[in-house]
Amino acid sequence: MEYVLPLQRLIEKFCTLRGVGYKTAVRYAFSVLDMSEEDAAEFAEALISAKRDICPCNVCGNLSEGGTCSVCSDSARDGSVICVVEDSRAVMAIEKVKEFRGLYHVLGGVISPMDNIGPDELRIKELLARINNGEVREIIIATNPNIEGETTAMYLSKLVAPLGIKVTRLAYGVPVGADLEYADEMTLMRALDGRRQI
Amino acid sequence: MEYVLPLQRLIEKFCTLRGVGYKTAVRYAFSVLDMSEEDAAEFAEALISAKRDICPCNVCGNLSEGGTCSVCSDSARDGSVICVVEDSRAVMAIEKVKEFRGLYHVLGGVISPMDNIGPDELRIKELLARINNGEVREIIIATNPNIEGETTAMYLSKLVAPLGIKVTRLAYGVPVGADLEYADEMTLMRALDGRRQI
Repeated sequence: MEYVLPLQRLIEKFCTLRGVGYKTAVRYAFSVLDMSEEDAAEFAEALISAKRDICPCNVCGNLSEGGTCSVCSDSARDGSVICVVEDSRAVMAIEKVKEFRGLYHVLGGVISPMDNIGPDELRIKELLARINNGEVREIIIATNPNIEGETTAMYLSKLVAPLGIKVTRLAYGVPVGADLEYADEMTLMRALDGRRQI
Repeated sequence: MEYVLPLQRLIEKFCTLRGVGYKTAVRYAFSVLDMSEEDAAEFAEALISAKRDICPCNVCGNLSEGGTCSVCSDSARDGSVICVVEDSRAVMAIEKVKEFRGLYHVLGGVISPMDNIGPDELRIKELLARINNGEVREIIIATNPNIEGETTAMYLSKLVAPLGIKVTRLAYGVPVGADLEYADEMTLMRALDGRRQI
């Protein structure tokens, strides 16, 4: 016996979330049935709004509510240092440390031949355009410490270093093979402090 | 630094699901950002539909898509035995065993003075009405094997037994203190087989 169709559909939708198996999806779906109709409607609106109202920052590619993100529009930030990250999860992870006062550049991924992602699929042109504006003195490459992240770091350093820009890489304080998103704040702080020139 | 507002709202909504903490909610919210706009819209529609299109069966109180649930509308089921459960999760758990061929009655909870739930808050009147129809010979009480479930079982048996109906209780094959929903099918099958008269 299957669940009633509307419930079955909701269970399948929960299954599409990262790390959710069938039993967990069933539990979540029943949680929704236990909600008030208003709460469910708000949940639905939040889902739609997240897709509709969030767009990449037109400067750095970080998440923003239309236009420029909160980091880029903060005039107190140091525009001479750009921290290059894979995605906005990494921006959030670094922001939590409250140590870095420069700007970001979100690549939107890493070079990964296995997934057919080459340099052209990343926001590298946009990075070079920002560098050519002249204000930038240092690029901190904060891609994840795995093979694809290292490859991307090497690629970027070869591209940017000849322009007379200092190119640094996060120190290997972050555990190799892990995701920036899950590093603790102490580790991230040390990684920022110990960054070294490539 | 907070996440952009629409993302923050979505994270908070995911936090309202049973068993979801903040970090997990963040992961789910980013999963949504990775979805296509259509998938997110379908997800939202599934949420709304689950609340809008599912209502209690007008016979047993189980989940149904308007009107009568699939068990009650199945004429091959044995109308002389009614299995009384707390909620529709328990119906699903027992249906999975494919052993029970009678009907169900969903109480919508259990007697719990701590939560201010007395017999009047449960669908007990509806159960007595079904019994008074005359066809019913046996009531299997399948509330969860914890204090509230036992109390409710005792209450029901005192109410129903004088009517000349056989009242049985699921055998203690289900592990004490656990939730029916998570019992394995073998255990549930033995519990059905070993039911005893109260």
